[in-house]
Amino acid sequence: MTVRIGMIGPGGMGQAHIDRIHTVIAGGRVVAVSDVNADNAQAVAERIGAVAHAGSAELISSPEVDAVMICSFGPAHEVDVLACIAAGKPVFCEKPLTPTADAALRIMDAEQAAGRKLVTVGFMRRFDAGYRQMKALLDSGDLGETLMVHCAHRNPTVPEIYTWDMAINDTAIHEVDTMRWLLGEEFVSARVDTPKKTSLRFPHLQDPLVLILTSESGVRVDDEIFVNCQFGYDIRCEAVAEKGAVSLADQNVIDVRSGFRASNAITRDHNERFWGAFVTEVQEWISAVARGEHTGSTSWDGYAAACVCDAGVQALTEDGEVAVEMIEKPAFYA
Amino acid sequence: MTVRIGMIGPGGMGQAHIDRIHTVIAGGRVVAVSDVNADNAQAVAERIGAVAHAGSAELISSPEVDAVMICSFGPAHEVDVLACIAAGKPVFCEKPLTPTADAALRIMDAEQAAGRKLVTVGFMRRFDAGYRQMKALLDSGDLGETLMVHCAHRNPTVPEIYTWDMAINDTAIHEVDTMRWLLGEEFVSARVDTPKKTSLRFPHLQDPLVLILTSESGVRVDDEIFVNCQFGYDIRCEAVAEKGAVSLADQNVIDVRSGFRASNAITRDHNERFWGAFVTEVQEWISAVARGEHTGSTSWDGYAAACVCDAGVQALTEDGEVAVEMIEKPAFYA
Amino acid sequence: MTVRIGMIGPGGMGQAHIDRIHTVIAGGRVVAVSDVNADNAQAVAERIGAVAHAGSAELISSPEVDAVMICSFGPAHEVDVLACIAAGKPVFCEKPLTPTADAALRIMDAEQAAGRKLVTVGFMRRFDAGYRQMKALLDSGDLGETLMVHCAHRNPTVPEIYTWDMAINDTAIHEVDTMRWLLGEEFVSARVDTPKKTSLRFPHLQDPLVLILTSESGVRVDDEIFVNCQFGYDIRCEAVAEKGAVSLADQNVIDVRSGFRASNAITRDHNERFWGAFVTEVQEWISAVARGEHTGSTSWDGYAAACVCDAGVQALTEDGEVAVEMIEKPAFYA
Amino acid sequence: MTVRIGMIGPGGMGQAHIDRIHTVIAGGRVVAVSDVNADNAQAVAERIGAVAHAGSAELISSPEVDAVMICSFGPAHEVDVLACIAAGKPVFCEKPLTPTADAALRIMDAEQAAGRKLVTVGFMRRFDAGYRQMKALLDSGDLGETLMVHCAHRNPTVPEIYTWDMAINDTAIHEVDTMRWLLGEEFVSARVDTPKKTSLRFPHLQDPLVLILTSESGVRVDDEIFVNCQFGYDIRCEAVAEKGAVSLADQNVIDVRSGFRASNAITRDHNERFWGAFVTEVQEWISAVARGEHTGSTSWDGYAAACVCDAGVQALTEDGEVAVEMIEKPAFYA
Repeated sequence: MTVRIGMIGPGGMGQAHIDRIHTVIAGGRVVAVSDVNADNAQAVAERIGAVAHAGSAELISSPEVDAVMICSFGPAHEVDVLACIAAGKPVFCEKPLTPTADAALRIMDAEQAAGRKLVTVGFMRRFDAGYRQMKALLDSGDLGETLMVHCAHRNPTVPEIYTWDMAINDTAIHEVDTMRWLLGEEFVSARVDTPKKTSLRFPHLQDPLVLILTSESGVRVDDEIFVNCQFGYDIRCEAVAEKGAVSLADQNVIDVRSGFRASNAITRDHNERFWGAFVTEVQEWISAVARGEHTGSTSWDGYAAACVCDAGVQALTEDGEVAVEMIEKPAFYA
Repeated sequence: MTVRIGMIGPGGMGQAHIDRIHTVIAGGRVVAVSDVNADNAQAVAERIGAVAHAGSAELISSPEVDAVMICSFGPAHEVDVLACIAAGKPVFCEKPLTPTADAALRIMDAEQAAGRKLVTVGFMRRFDAGYRQMKALLDSGDLGETLMVHCAHRNPTVPEIYTWDMAINDTAIHEVDTMRWLLGEEFVSARVDTPKKTSLRFPHLQDPLVLILTSESGVRVDDEIFVNCQFGYDIRCEAVAEKGAVSLADQNVIDVRSGFRASNAITRDHNERFWGAFVTEVQEWISAVARGEHTGSTSWDGYAAACVCDAGVQALTEDGEVAVEMIEKPAFYA
Repeated sequence: MTVRIGMIGPGGMGQAHIDRIHTVIAGGRVVAVSDVNADNAQAVAERIGAVAHAGSAELISSPEVDAVMICSFGPAHEVDVLACIAAGKPVFCEKPLTPTADAALRIMDAEQAAGRKLVTVGFMRRFDAGYRQMKALLDSGDLGETLMVHCAHRNPTVPEIYTWDMAINDTAIHEVDTMRWLLGEEFVSARVDTPKKTSLRFPHLQDPLVLILTSESGVRVDDEIFVNCQFGYDIRCEAVAEKGAVSLADQNVIDVRSGFRASNAITRDHNERFWGAFVTEVQEWISAVARGEHTGSTSWDGYAAACVCDAGVQALTEDGEVAVEMIEKPAFYA
Repeated sequence: MTVRIGMIGPGGMGQAHIDRIHTVIAGGRVVAVSDVNADNAQAVAERIGAVAHAGSAELISSPEVDAVMICSFGPAHEVDVLACIAAGKPVFCEKPLTPTADAALRIMDAEQAAGRKLVTVGFMRRFDAGYRQMKALLDSGDLGETLMVHCAHRNPTVPEIYTWDMAINDTAIHEVDTMRWLLGEEFVSARVDTPKKTSLRFPHLQDPLVLILTSESGVRVDDEIFVNCQFGYDIRCEAVAEKGAVSLADQNVIDVRSGFRASNAITRDHNERFWGAFVTEVQEWISAVARGEHTGSTSWDGYAAACVCDAGVQALTEDGEVAVEMIEKPAFYA
């Protein structure tokens, strides 16, 4: 009853998923690998005792593969996701689902035509224990309606290839998905504020910036994006509701006292901070696949995130609010 | 060598100052009182063994009075502050210095003509241990340049008479002054965002709102104003700099465990939260008066806060940023 | 390559292990079950699609079983562990390994005769992220030598059947094992102090008590055992070293503000508090079995814990320190 | 109505008290000074505009002196305190009241003969905000009866002249007084445990040690004394009661994030940690003197602390518990 998984594009993230599946996750095994770099496919397949396929199409259609994980470059996602849908196989696609909202729409069309939710988008924060407890408390109604959320997404540094739009499409996209899920509603507008720039960045980059999103019911979300903050990978989130507030705690397991300081470690990157979330995400996906069910973010979520990010990117160069353009949510995804 | 103080308008705040001076502050004594309500002046004077004056002018000119504290209604401040300046007496005036920037300008003119800084405006947060340690760390340069500050100013509830503009003029004015002082520069623009409204408020009120200020050098300050948050008087502040961040800690002195919760008290009002700041503020003012020096916020600070608040109030009903109108800072206040 | 596990005595703990293995752990499957209550064995076997064996001996000798987990009543452990050793099969035995040190000695003899470490004792705290980070920091030497450890082991309540010796043998035994592992040395003496009794306990019970252990090198460990503390399952540990201290943090993932309190949840029981430790413990055991290696606490650890607990139980009714009686550690377990 | 204070023995602590009285405390003024070192008395008197007396007796009897503060060397306390009592003047005597319990008894006899509580002993922790909130919560009964208290008293380092008995008489004496006050009862026995010694100490010193006290009702207090802990002046206290626990919080006013650590400062010495307690202590004493009342620790408290410390010092060199020898508490001090 083990789920036999085909992995497309096993780079850093893909190989981390493979290792998790083989060492700390129940019920799955990566049995097939493909990559635009055939040598890499071969090397990974040998390391884990899997079959290397010449291409993703062949992998997807293999009768030995029950479900597919796509960890390739974003522009390559669409064709493989569509092939999975055509083959009737569950597919876990790393974020972003597609580089454009239009491509996501095509995936949604195909999935609706197939009549079954097959696509899960790899937004791992929905599986983080902290966000989950926040959502459980907010959903309980004990604190009343949520009115505002304050987020911060801080990386120690980014490389020179990191461009301004990546602050939205690669970085803030996590808050976009997590906040949609946390609030249970869509965003209608985006605005970007540009604080004083840090001198500790490549010259082409506006860093930090603040993305401000407004939801259908008027909830205001602000998200500080600061990708050269130097001091750590620091993810903050505080939801303020009518009768109380709830925030992510620093997830410390030890407290240290030395040298006249009481201190705790701040994580260094997303792999460290969200290790547990990644494990739970993939575990729940494999378990759902085994039961014939869907879990996690849908194609609609991938589409909606792309639409919000499109507005966010446009807001980078425009004053004021940019409306989020989005089709009406198909009943299929309700 | 005791500083003999005349108190104008001893309402709740004024009497709290009197009690501090007489019980926990060195070097001062309230010897004279006046009030538009003569009965109140008489009652307070009797309670503390002081002289009740028929009017503030008489109190200010009394040879028994070395320095004056003004705790009356805001619109009454200007005439009394001007009288103090005319009399050459140091004056501590509760915030706001004046209801309008123009009135503050007249006070600055008079003070400059007098050739000596006599006016201290009662912005107590500059004396809070937390803000002071934040400023010391930021000023040290260890964290690099400050880029952003995130503030929240939360009250459990406000009464029905509280109006929208008071969110700026009475509430946010504290962050306006404290942030000017923390950053050591002026604000050039203000904007107001209006999140989803809490249902637990009087219908006429937009609550919460977010005031966004931009400083001369581009530092972005956001200030969540939520005056019916129900859960406590909760003052938050996090400054984000190039190499680190510093925030106000919850100033707990005990930790409690009971009923499956580890918890700490949140303060109930500004008197509880800023008790120490009020004491230090008045202590340092009295000590400075005794030495013939000035301490705390100046007339310029009162003026500048009024200018920023004017822009903030305008921003309540306008889209986008409102420029802060302000004269150039006179060298006298440098 | 799945490790096929036989489960002996699937009560609450055993079934929790089964569920973990089948839902969140890689590489194992429970394929066989036995229980002194045959009906229970049958029911569990049916639920998970495993074979119910008439007795533990039959289960252990089954060629379909690669490794054995023993979750039965303590007095039943010895015979089954010995049978596993005789069969050359890795065995995970819930704590305590045996009710007496003598029985543990017999297991050690058998294991040494077999020439291979086959026995793992279920002390899960060694797998807790907090204790592991504490140990890593102490082992790094950055804080110098460890001098003292302060522990507390608090349960909300215990049932009437809980007896005084269980405070040592069932409760403090966790600190005994964890501290031996943390310090990397044995304890030489035990003493018990009896503070004022809580009125919220069954009359026969001394609760709380404080167990004080001294290690070979002189490290002093105190362990407050308070099993009717009412307020939560609260596990505390602070190691004080020559240049600093490190303690278990409250492992919060959210912070809540409401009703004038900032608060965090305290866990309710060991399953909640040590969920992650249990998962890691069983995962690492299964992975080690698959590699033909040993992991976790050994028979020696089970024996040593029993010796310390024997001294602790004796100390319950004696003044002053009781020496821990222990054979010299066989080279086999070095 | 200013209280005119005579200061005997203005060394470091005495001059700190003078500065507090003159800069941040209401209602007092140091008008007279004496010292065994006449030059020091002269220098201090000149600095503050006070009279330098040739000896303490002359100072005490001066009609210009309303109340006396004694900050001289411990062995000199008795004669001056007795002279104050004879003169009917309130006297604040730094701890310890006297080096021996017998001397304290003579003071109590004189005070009772005088018929009025005149002596306040300088145990400042009773005035610390944290201990006060702890006591208020415990006294409220919300947590039930107190059963145990865990204390730690850590100094970064001590000089070579620090001897073993000082660990009790100079260091632990603070916990002795504070715990007597917190619990509202006396201690009946003391024991000392000696953990592994830190290598970072002078060879003659056992450091750390643990003092264990038992109260009349059976409350057990343990106090870790670690005076070369290197990492800070770290005062910890957790009281465990029947339904909950309360502990001193780290009294942080800011939180800092930098260099992959979230951290807070640990104080460097008692002046920094207990600054507020010292100010409140002296303020309340002066206010009480002005009202003709007594405040703070009494002669009985000084005597009782000495008795407990005597037992503690004896316990340094004896195995097991040492009974605390103490007369019955005179009704005068009830």
